[in-house]
Amino acid sequence: MYYPEPIAKLIDSFTRLPGIGSKTAARLAFHVLRMDEENVVEFAKALVSVKRNLLYCSVCCNITDTDPCRICQDKTRDPSCICVVQEPKDLIAMERMKEYNGKYHVLHGAISPMEGIGPDELRVSELLNRLTDERVQELILATNPNIEGEATAMYLSRLVKPFELRVTRIAHGLPVGGDLEYADEVTLSKALEGRREI
Amino acid sequence: MYYPEPIAKLIDSFTRLPGIGSKTAARLAFHVLRMDEENVVEFAKALVSVKRNLLYCSVCCNITDTDPCRICQDKTRDPSCICVVQEPKDLIAMERMKEYNGKYHVLHGAISPMEGIGPDELRVSELLNRLTDERVQELILATNPNIEGEATAMYLSRLVKPFELRVTRIAHGLPVGGDLEYADEVTLSKALEGRREI
Repeated sequence: MYYPEPIAKLIDSFTRLPGIGSKTAARLAFHVLRMDEENVVEFAKALVSVKRNLLYCSVCCNITDTDPCRICQDKTRDPSCICVVQEPKDLIAMERMKEYNGKYHVLHGAISPMEGIGPDELRVSELLNRLTDERVQELILATNPNIEGEATAMYLSRLVKPFELRVTRIAHGLPVGGDLEYADEVTLSKALEGRREI
Repeated sequence: MYYPEPIAKLIDSFTRLPGIGSKTAARLAFHVLRMDEENVVEFAKALVSVKRNLLYCSVCCNITDTDPCRICQDKTRDPSCICVVQEPKDLIAMERMKEYNGKYHVLHGAISPMEGIGPDELRVSELLNRLTDERVQELILATNPNIEGEATAMYLSRLVKPFELRVTRIAHGLPVGGDLEYADEVTLSKALEGRREI
């Protein structure tokens, strides 16, 4: 053992984070050593607080510090539309757009037989419970445009058939600022398939 | 504000670390959210412990959790030779080599007029105090082979003249496994200058 124990432990903790190898971990640990104690204590508190003070919203399953979450409590948001996303990060991406004014539902994953994740591992039953509310008229499936996301969207669209809602899927096509030349075949084929009159 | 407060704070703390931007910070914070509470608490404790339980060795100025540090306490290590390095990380690089059996002295920096770091900001007086010990016979200057490190080595070599010690500088030359073709001129010139009979 070359490092004194406290710093070795911190390096070990940093190494457990994704994308941080032993050299980066050592660099970060030595940076912490030079930080103000105040900031370090704040960092430590933030870490524990994330685990202890965050919970899942009992309505939409998003992470939140109040239950129900701020979006579910917000009376100005349209309760007739629920946008289904895979992860809390996806919800944040939607919110950043500032154009969607409905509610959300966070699945916390997507169906993936390869990883052994079936519908039971996702927050699907919570979604079905919400659909019994007569105000809900549209379900927007905004899972990721990859195999797992598509499979999840397909599964959900069939599952909610009995509720007789309008079920939509976000559009596939060329990203804005993209280049036709570099677009892959599947995206291009989806873009052509989804063409609209102008 | 898109994120719930606890996670926003954690993202903010991660962003303060070097080389971590807002997207990486968000990824790390969400990873923490999925970690076991036990590991997160351990991480938080390690952070605070690094600030509170580490101190500088009163002899060699290295970071340590015991004073004097383990190397300074070690009776099997040769007290006649002191290797001067810039940072604790450099000491660890030397130790990793497993060939040096003397003592160390950590300067915590190098002379850099550009950054306003003069000899007074370094642990130079502590070094001079140690040289009054008659057992010390050699001082190895192992500061980095760049302008600041060279200036520091030059400064120290002149400063310790009155002690009549053997003062040496680690060798400059081609790194092992390096390629003559890609060596820069200065390194090559140093390698030629430092040539030895075989």
